[in-house]
Amino acid sequence: MRTALVIGTGLIGTSAALALAARGVTVHLADHDPDRASTAAALGAGTDAEPAARVDLAIVAVPPAHVAATLADAMRRGVARGYIDVASVKGGPRRELLELGCDLTPYIGTHPMAGKEKSGPLAGSADLFEGRPWVLTPTRDSETEVFNLALELVALCRAVPVVMDADAHDRAVALVSHTPQLVSSMVAARLEEADETAVRLCGQGIRDVTRIAASDPRMWVEILSANPGPVADVLAGVAEDLADTVQSLRAMESGDEDKRRGGADGIEDVLRRGNAGRVRVPGKHGSAPAAYEMVSVLISDQPGQLARIFADAGQAGVNIEDVRIEHATGQQAGLVQLMVDPQAVDALSRALVERGWGLRK
Amino acid sequence: MRTALVIGTGLIGTSAALALAARGVTVHLADHDPDRASTAAALGAGTDAEPAARVDLAIVAVPPAHVAATLADAMRRGVARGYIDVASVKGGPRRELLELGCDLTPYIGTHPMAGKEKSGPLAGSADLFEGRPWVLTPTRDSETEVFNLALELVALCRAVPVVMDADAHDRAVALVSHTPQLVSSMVAARLEEADETAVRLCGQGIRDVTRIAASDPRMWVEILSANPGPVADVLAGVAEDLADTVQSLRAMESGDEDKRRGGADGIEDVLRRGNAGRVRVPGKHGSAPAAYEMVSVLISDQPGQLARIFADAGQAGVNIEDVRIEHATGQQAGLVQLMVDPQAVDALSRALVERGWGLRK
Repeated sequence: MRTALVIGTGLIGTSAALALAARGVTVHLADHDPDRASTAAALGAGTDAEPAARVDLAIVAVPPAHVAATLADAMRRGVARGYIDVASVKGGPRRELLELGCDLTPYIGTHPMAGKEKSGPLAGSADLFEGRPWVLTPTRDSETEVFNLALELVALCRAVPVVMDADAHDRAVALVSHTPQLVSSMVAARLEEADETAVRLCGQGIRDVTRIAASDPRMWVEILSANPGPVADVLAGVAEDLADTVQSLRAMESGDEDKRRGGADGIEDVLRRGNAGRVRVPGKHGSAPAAYEMVSVLISDQPGQLARIFADAGQAGVNIEDVRIEHATGQQAGLVQLMVDPQAVDALSRALVERGWGLRK
Repeated sequence: MRTALVIGTGLIGTSAALALAARGVTVHLADHDPDRASTAAALGAGTDAEPAARVDLAIVAVPPAHVAATLADAMRRGVARGYIDVASVKGGPRRELLELGCDLTPYIGTHPMAGKEKSGPLAGSADLFEGRPWVLTPTRDSETEVFNLALELVALCRAVPVVMDADAHDRAVALVSHTPQLVSSMVAARLEEADETAVRLCGQGIRDVTRIAASDPRMWVEILSANPGPVADVLAGVAEDLADTVQSLRAMESGDEDKRRGGADGIEDVLRRGNAGRVRVPGKHGSAPAAYEMVSVLISDQPGQLARIFADAGQAGVNIEDVRIEHATGQQAGLVQLMVDPQAVDALSRALVERGWGLRK
């Protein structure tokens, strides 16, 4: 790929442009707001001048609701050899393009699984996609040349290509992204009216479950508006489990021992299925998080304590795979949980104890 | 407090005994399995000999189902001046004791909010409760002397006392602990049958939401068996929001624009209530997690990288409040997200960039 046109210079468009420009591709930038395109150009993402000739790849990075119209317009003008979009849903834009009578052979819908809290060209960075999955949804009618251009884009952005059917993609993000967001919000919503004393009892569990409940509601309404059906389907499954669970809990209140046992069995079933599902969530390098073991270290709240722990672990040759700091409410002391390869637990524990750290077994 | 009797030498009982023994209290240990009591004694938690005289405080640390009978027996024998239990629910044991005809004035139900993945005396440690909330549920009939003994126990274990009504406690843990557990399991359960390709798209959001879905089902069935009513009540509220949310999503699929807008409003409402609830979840020192800002640093997967980051942050005088390591699936590179005081963001960013780190803005 030698030339590209990025239409829409928000976070994703600018980041892709920055990555392409950094790897020697001539990038043209367009936006319905010319100031945004010139901001992206000033950041080194390319030029906001119109391309003199047909470019290799047009990358449409506008909000989901405008994707189909923008693509149809670009294809009508014949600005590129190949066309992709980067919207977070893939079935809808494809169907809209068909309704608009477009030839879909030079088009492939894509979705880079990357983002951040901030938006706009100033939030863009060439490394936004590094190591992230980037979904490509070619069909049997897609031109191989366009597929290869899309793969090259993904490679130049240092992302990991994942090929999927468009509707399967939408069901997958409903499952692994949109549903967790809504459920997290619903658990957090229960706390809105809770007593202050009850809220003081919150521990790490609810902190983790509700972390993404802090997300921007408007952005999420936009995302969910583009994928309501698949999300409703997944949530309907959750609602069934939830109704069964409430029933099981009510049975556990019964005076009849058989009913109580039946309720307990129902609860155990949903917890076991949760175990089975959780094992499938990939951790680092695609492995399950269960593959790591935890070493817990007591710390005080002083700058440099964490540095010392990590330095000591590094000197012992142990690679820390994940870390979690648990602070006690209202206290100056805390706990650092280090996740390491099970084979490294002994070496790390020994090294830390030798260096004066207190471990919680 | 000079003497104590710990009945039940599992994780909690042994940990409390270790803390008391370390602070000079003479601790007697009892267990229906004498081997466990002698194991705890061998760890330095006290003696497994029977007390020669009435002790100051009896601490009943047996599974919830046996709490009332064990307490009633100890009170009948008059082994102590004051009696507490440490079970994770408080309403049930109190009612059972009343049914057994016990005088409740020398008894206070308590619940230390601490635990770990492992159980049994060998998992015990004197610092298990350090900085954790320890709920006390005195009534107006409780003897002040017993309340003071319980407060002394909490102080000697270096926990933070929180006084609550027994039923309010049970509703609170249903809200902040039992409900998040079940909901996390239900979200994870959706992944059990998911396509491998879909699972590859999992990001940090679902990883956080489903982390506690890896918990032990049997332990949780026991916990939930003792508190089914309050948990069912909270889940019924979640179920209502969930039903409304599915309906809102279905409305968003409608051809009618008013219906679509109504659906979007419904979704925005639950997301906003989620924001409001999340703000109430205490982070460190009781403050909301929103009080921190994030600095994201790119790292490669080499031992020592984290040590260098923390050392560099320490040299800049910046205290890192929380940290999250985000590894890209199948890749050797990752991102470290450092949570710091907003006033420290500039100093930390400058220090890290000066020392050669790549930041993601």
